[in-house]
Amino acid sequence: MAKYVYLFKEGNAQMRELLGGKGANLAEMTNLGLPIPQGFTITTEACTRYYDDNEKIADEIKEEVFSNLSELERITGKKFGSVENPLLVSVRSGARASMPGMMDTILNLGLNEDVVASIAKSNERFAYDSYRRFIQMFSDVVMEIPKPLFEAEIDKMKAEKGVKLDTELTAEDLKELVKRFKEIYRKEKGTEFPSDPVEQLVKAIEAVFRSWNNPRAITYRRLNDIPSDWGTAVNVQEMVFGNMGDDCGTGVAFTRNPATGENKIFGEYLMNAQGEDVVAGVRTPQPIATLEQTNKKAYDDFMMYANKLEKHYKDMQDMEFTIEHGKLFFLQTRNGKRTANAALQIAVDLVDEGMITEKEAVLRVEPNQLDQLLHPNFDASKLKEAKEMATGLAASPGAATGKVVFTAERAVELHEQGEKDLILVRLETSPEDIDGMNVCHGVLTVRGGMTSHAAVVARGMGTCCVAGCGEITVDEESKKFIAPNGKEFHEGDWISLDGSTGKVYGEKIDTVEASVTGNFAKLMGWADQYRQMEVRANADTPRDAKQARNFGAQGIGLCRTEHMFFAPERIAAIREMIVSKTVEQRKRALEKLLPMQRGDFEGLFRAMDGYPVIIRLLDPPLHEFVPHADEEIAELAKEMNMPFEELKNVVKGLHEFNPMMGHRGCRLDVTYPEIGEMQARAIIEAAANVSKEGIKVKPEIMIPLVGELKELKYVKDIITRTAAEVMKEKNVQLDYMVGTMIEIPRAALLADELAKEAQFFSFGTNDLTQMTFGFSRDDAGKFLDEYYAKKIYENDPFKKLDQNGVGKLVEMAAREGRKTRPDIELGICGEHGGEPATVEYCHKVGLTYVSCSPYRVPIARLAASQAAIKNPR
Amino acid sequence: MAKYVYLFKEGNAQMRELLGGKGANLAEMTNLGLPIPQGFTITTEACTRYYDDNEKIADEIKEEVFSNLSELERITGKKFGSVENPLLVSVRSGARASMPGMMDTILNLGLNEDVVASIAKSNERFAYDSYRRFIQMFSDVVMEIPKPLFEAEIDKMKAEKGVKLDTELTAEDLKELVKRFKEIYRKEKGTEFPSDPVEQLVKAIEAVFRSWNNPRAITYRRLNDIPSDWGTAVNVQEMVFGNMGDDCGTGVAFTRNPATGENKIFGEYLMNAQGEDVVAGVRTPQPIATLEQTNKKAYDDFMMYANKLEKHYKDMQDMEFTIEHGKLFFLQTRNGKRTANAALQIAVDLVDEGMITEKEAVLRVEPNQLDQLLHPNFDASKLKEAKEMATGLAASPGAATGKVVFTAERAVELHEQGEKDLILVRLETSPEDIDGMNVCHGVLTVRGGMTSHAAVVARGMGTCCVAGCGEITVDEESKKFIAPNGKEFHEGDWISLDGSTGKVYGEKIDTVEASVTGNFAKLMGWADQYRQMEVRANADTPRDAKQARNFGAQGIGLCRTEHMFFAPERIAAIREMIVSKTVEQRKRALEKLLPMQRGDFEGLFRAMDGYPVIIRLLDPPLHEFVPHADEEIAELAKEMNMPFEELKNVVKGLHEFNPMMGHRGCRLDVTYPEIGEMQARAIIEAAANVSKEGIKVKPEIMIPLVGELKELKYVKDIITRTAAEVMKEKNVQLDYMVGTMIEIPRAALLADELAKEAQFFSFGTNDLTQMTFGFSRDDAGKFLDEYYAKKIYENDPFKKLDQNGVGKLVEMAAREGRKTRPDIELGICGEHGGEPATVEYCHKVGLTYVSCSPYRVPIARLAASQAAIKNPR
Repeated sequence: MAKYVYLFKEGNAQMRELLGGKGANLAEMTNLGLPIPQGFTITTEACTRYYDDNEKIADEIKEEVFSNLSELERITGKKFGSVENPLLVSVRSGARASMPGMMDTILNLGLNEDVVASIAKSNERFAYDSYRRFIQMFSDVVMEIPKPLFEAEIDKMKAEKGVKLDTELTAEDLKELVKRFKEIYRKEKGTEFPSDPVEQLVKAIEAVFRSWNNPRAITYRRLNDIPSDWGTAVNVQEMVFGNMGDDCGTGVAFTRNPATGENKIFGEYLMNAQGEDVVAGVRTPQPIATLEQTNKKAYDDFMMYANKLEKHYKDMQDMEFTIEHGKLFFLQTRNGKRTANAALQIAVDLVDEGMITEKEAVLRVEPNQLDQLLHPNFDASKLKEAKEMATGLAASPGAATGKVVFTAERAVELHEQGEKDLILVRLETSPEDIDGMNVCHGVLTVRGGMTSHAAVVARGMGTCCVAGCGEITVDEESKKFIAPNGKEFHEGDWISLDGSTGKVYGEKIDTVEASVTGNFAKLMGWADQYRQMEVRANADTPRDAKQARNFGAQGIGLCRTEHMFFAPERIAAIREMIVSKTVEQRKRALEKLLPMQRGDFEGLFRAMDGYPVIIRLLDPPLHEFVPHADEEIAELAKEMNMPFEELKNVVKGLHEFNPMMGHRGCRLDVTYPEIGEMQARAIIEAAANVSKEGIKVKPEIMIPLVGELKELKYVKDIITRTAAEVMKEKNVQLDYMVGTMIEIPRAALLADELAKEAQFFSFGTNDLTQMTFGFSRDDAGKFLDEYYAKKIYENDPFKKLDQNGVGKLVEMAAREGRKTRPDIELGICGEHGGEPATVEYCHKVGLTYVSCSPYRVPIARLAASQAAIKNPR
Repeated sequence: MAKYVYLFKEGNAQMRELLGGKGANLAEMTNLGLPIPQGFTITTEACTRYYDDNEKIADEIKEEVFSNLSELERITGKKFGSVENPLLVSVRSGARASMPGMMDTILNLGLNEDVVASIAKSNERFAYDSYRRFIQMFSDVVMEIPKPLFEAEIDKMKAEKGVKLDTELTAEDLKELVKRFKEIYRKEKGTEFPSDPVEQLVKAIEAVFRSWNNPRAITYRRLNDIPSDWGTAVNVQEMVFGNMGDDCGTGVAFTRNPATGENKIFGEYLMNAQGEDVVAGVRTPQPIATLEQTNKKAYDDFMMYANKLEKHYKDMQDMEFTIEHGKLFFLQTRNGKRTANAALQIAVDLVDEGMITEKEAVLRVEPNQLDQLLHPNFDASKLKEAKEMATGLAASPGAATGKVVFTAERAVELHEQGEKDLILVRLETSPEDIDGMNVCHGVLTVRGGMTSHAAVVARGMGTCCVAGCGEITVDEESKKFIAPNGKEFHEGDWISLDGSTGKVYGEKIDTVEASVTGNFAKLMGWADQYRQMEVRANADTPRDAKQARNFGAQGIGLCRTEHMFFAPERIAAIREMIVSKTVEQRKRALEKLLPMQRGDFEGLFRAMDGYPVIIRLLDPPLHEFVPHADEEIAELAKEMNMPFEELKNVVKGLHEFNPMMGHRGCRLDVTYPEIGEMQARAIIEAAANVSKEGIKVKPEIMIPLVGELKELKYVKDIITRTAAEVMKEKNVQLDYMVGTMIEIPRAALLADELAKEAQFFSFGTNDLTQMTFGFSRDDAGKFLDEYYAKKIYENDPFKKLDQNGVGKLVEMAAREGRKTRPDIELGICGEHGGEPATVEYCHKVGLTYVSCSPYRVPIARLAASQAAIKNPR
């Protein structure tokens, strides 16, 4: 029979999958002899079982819970539900992966009128403070009664009493508050607040299990690639109290600075408070250093144990602790979340300190996190001119400039309308805001410290954040904020945030590109030693190509030639080509494009001196180049000196029912070979010209949308014929390759054949994903949200490669392609190419390179290195 | 070293792949001792080599040709190019498969002024008749000089001389004609007509090789599934002459009647003519029986040899012969093309005659040909009232009613515009007309006999044809024809043809359904004994279901529920559902649809008593049910009592960029589970009701567009939950299955997983083809013609399953599905399900059934039987 419940002393850190991160670490700390309030963990398997049993806790699990509860009573010498020496517990979720703020906690469980009255005998204020907290948390988390109902009642009480802080409320006030809270409960639920501690406990456990599938947990999992079938564990732990008086408190701390990585304890605590007060950011807490003055023993203990934990886990720890009447307890430890800069600093420091090896250091940095470092910073010259308007806490580094928006929903809405530059301004953020934070460049909050929700989440996302900026006044209702200088800001007004200094500017400040230096460069150097795949970049212009090289790209994996066509002087020639009625007309129009394309390619070859440059032939359907509204057609007709009706007919003729699956890619070259001829000529002429400058060129010409060997051969023949002509004309000999995209399923299925003609394969996983799933990216938005909500898909397959389905095609094509041509070059150029899990997959499949946007090149380099370390080929 | 040329005596009938059909049979006939003008065959490999060598004949092949030519001179005792006893030859193509009229022939090769003058000494008229024919054929076939230039010259000459027939032209006239023909040649080519017989021969061989890739050959191959890499052989054969005088002639004959199958020699010949005169239908030939009177010896010989050939080949033979001064020569034999009725009659007769077994008989009938028998016939009562307007030859059976069109191009054009009822009326047809004939219900020609081009091709296509209807006068230029009664018919006027009687009617006559009786039923009975796959039908209405059962369907493989939604009273409810803003509104609208759907399903279950009925849940995107033009939206808004703008927004919201890959199929059930609930309820309620009538129901509920196990499970859960409810309400227990379409590539890739939940797979090869190829059927027309022309694709993958690519997915899914669920039911319901080559493929892959349109059920039955015979499982 399965064991569903473990006492802390029965577990250890290796049992993370079963006990969740929190449970496993509580067990480990128990074993290490740290002061831990004892308790037990209900396993993640119990959670899975709960869902398998149609959201019911099986009797056998309940029995196990109660027998462990008895054991806990024995250990603590207290009794659950008893008025004498009552055992109170916390009930907290703890999944395998840390999901900060995503799931729910209930403290002080086991209280009822009798127990409270008994506790009140020794500490009345504490008793009712704990009870009102419990009622509020239980009502919110377990019974889903809106939290604001209770908060309003507290505010009302504070107003009645003329006080500002919760701590200023007296025992009598809190007793009254308990009454009012129960009244709310009665009104909302139609029943009395449950007084039976056993009922409270079972309901609380159920609520934690349920919380695994609340919408924000689902979103968090999707953003962080956490499978929904993991489930969460539940930790039931004896309460220790930070709210018993002024010799009590609770706090959170990191063994090193999570923003900078500095090797110095970093933390905050609040006196006379319970855990949620610190994280929620309602009161502004004290730095941990001040504890030395007020309670030296607790401070010294804390420092000793914190040090011990870091040495034990060999990584920076994020800890929660409580001080009860001067005595220190640890409630949690975990490897701390950190900014990218901190991650690099810590990794490099740990190597310097001899704690870990360089190889381990490479594995310590989350590749996606580097994104933070690759984002623009303020242009220093522009920053000098800018005037600081306010200062808050430097909660998450980076620079952001954007338009103010006051709610997360509105941010999402504006983002969907195409507004990319947004900054979310809030009194404080809550877990519901996660989607909105995700689409903003930066977050500015009025309340909350370095460990407030906004700060933690923003750091995790790599979004710039200035928190606790009390100098500004936000009026969320009328959607404005007032700066210290009295200036009002409304939705759409520009501001800028410096998340590294905490400074806020009331204007737009231009930003500049990032670069790879210092710790970043050092770690990338270590990473590159282990990497086995090349990393190339998708770049369409010489400018992008240069940026990509700065970030360490070893070539261009995809140049989309059509991106060069939209400049005004070029689009005219393209349109002339499209309306051509004869091959001769078309050739004339193409001749105008030839020098422009050649110039672009020359720039790319120069930027990539010595590295390969893959240039893809024209891909999109021709209707993308013509206007569709009557007025625009009329205008163009005038410009092109042709009758409106005629042009309109051309445009109509180009219409497609499913343009994604229409007349595009190599199909254009089959119907209009002269397009391929012009492009091949431009590429080879450019290569010839640049190579005469002494630059080493490695052109690779890529044919898109191939599905059949003869089709590939037909277009390849155009290229080789043209290339031979050009080389003869220019009297040079150039090495170049011709390859194909593998982006339609049939190409993957027939890869063995295609490899007869293709010297390289490049997996175009965007289109391959669309066609393998049978949904178009442009349309899938209409139903994918329902699919996430119903847990059918857990990831956006356009962001993270679907290894089960699409991956099967990639694997098959790679294997079959190599069978035919053992030295075939294999790469990926879909957007997945910069996604770490996909990069690891590509390594396993044996690809030669991955290609991604220039800004993701360092991420791909690190991910490829980690993949090689984890999966030696 | 390869041998590229074989003397006739070196080959045999088994060498068809190498020598082509004509060459192999000439060799076989030589071995059988028939009177065959001798010659040699240049192999199909030489043709392939010609294309491999960039359309050049390699020297080694030329050498082999000339050494065989010398051998032929030795055999015949004649000399090529000599004025004394000159050897003249024919040069004819002959591919593995017979391609009547598709490729080119040159007769009388070896003539020049000197040779002609020498021959003229003994027979001047014959000499110049042969020469003018040679010049014309050589100019047309080899030099691509338009044939009408020569025909006009003949017509002019006949007018000058006041004669009607070619045979009435004198030697002198023909000599003059030769002069004028050479003048045309000089004018067109700028050089003299080639007088060197060796040059003539090499050019002619090249022309035959080239003819393999002329546009009409490419089209023919595509329509008949002949691979383009087969190539054609070339036969060089001593000429015998049917145009040497009135004791000469040439003809074609069948050992049995190709239209009815009657066991009686059937043939025609023309005196004093060469082969092309008979086939082209310019003069109307004599029945073969008349030969008995004019040349008993030749007739008796002919009958003896014909009989010998049929016995030898055990099949009806189609022969060409020439009589030269009373002596009979065979020029060709092959298994004769025949109508479906004739094929059945012959197969049944051959069994009765003890020549072949029942199993062999099953293999003798081309499944696709049955199509002819499954087409409508005239409604007998309507036919009684109709008045016959003219009569021609009953050249290809069946009934056709449609609107007159005068050119093949125009027919194609009108067909593309959606006009389905067309009848092509021509003086005579030519190979260029093949596309146009393909889109018409029937063909009516003024000239030509039972073996004219129109008749042969129409029979092959199963298209009704009345040929040689000299009673009508066609004016092709002004696009009209005049009936014997003086009535004029223009494009668009209705006429009707009875291809079984040769009667023509000047009006529309309603047609009735076909049925399976007589020989047809007998052969189908034999076939069913060997068949291992079930054959089901795609049927959406009780009426279709009944028709399908009449044709032998063993169930419904696909009922498209949406096809029931377009009736006016239903579309209103559907639209109400679409514009619903809440689940409740949507449910109310769906409740209106429930009884209608239930009624349809009851009808299907009754029609299919005892057989399975697969019902697919709603598949198309919702925007297919709403209007898109503003006026129509306005009208609907009024009808639905909602503001125009609101409805317009709903319609806009439904827009999709790629509807094929949009919000449809099971995605509708995931977002609106109430749709699936309603449909499951309608199916199970209908099944319960009908089964209470004592009818055996086997519902199989099919979920479309599945790509993921969890998605399938989600929708399956809706179905099983609803079914359980209904069965409880109705207090019945019903067996039903739930399965999935395999129509998106990911479903095929993850078939092992899907089989955990799916009790059956149905391959939806239409969508699977679209997504595997990455082109939408609606759009591919824009480029597929270029793909055929450039020989990239040889078949329309929507007609014949692409076994290499799409087939790989089908095979994989079948294999993996069976691994998970050994008894899984596997079927195909795409349009390919009635295509014989695909049916054979499905048999090989091990499918349980194929499903096709009711009219193709007998075809699929026969194809499945043949597949089982050829590929024992």
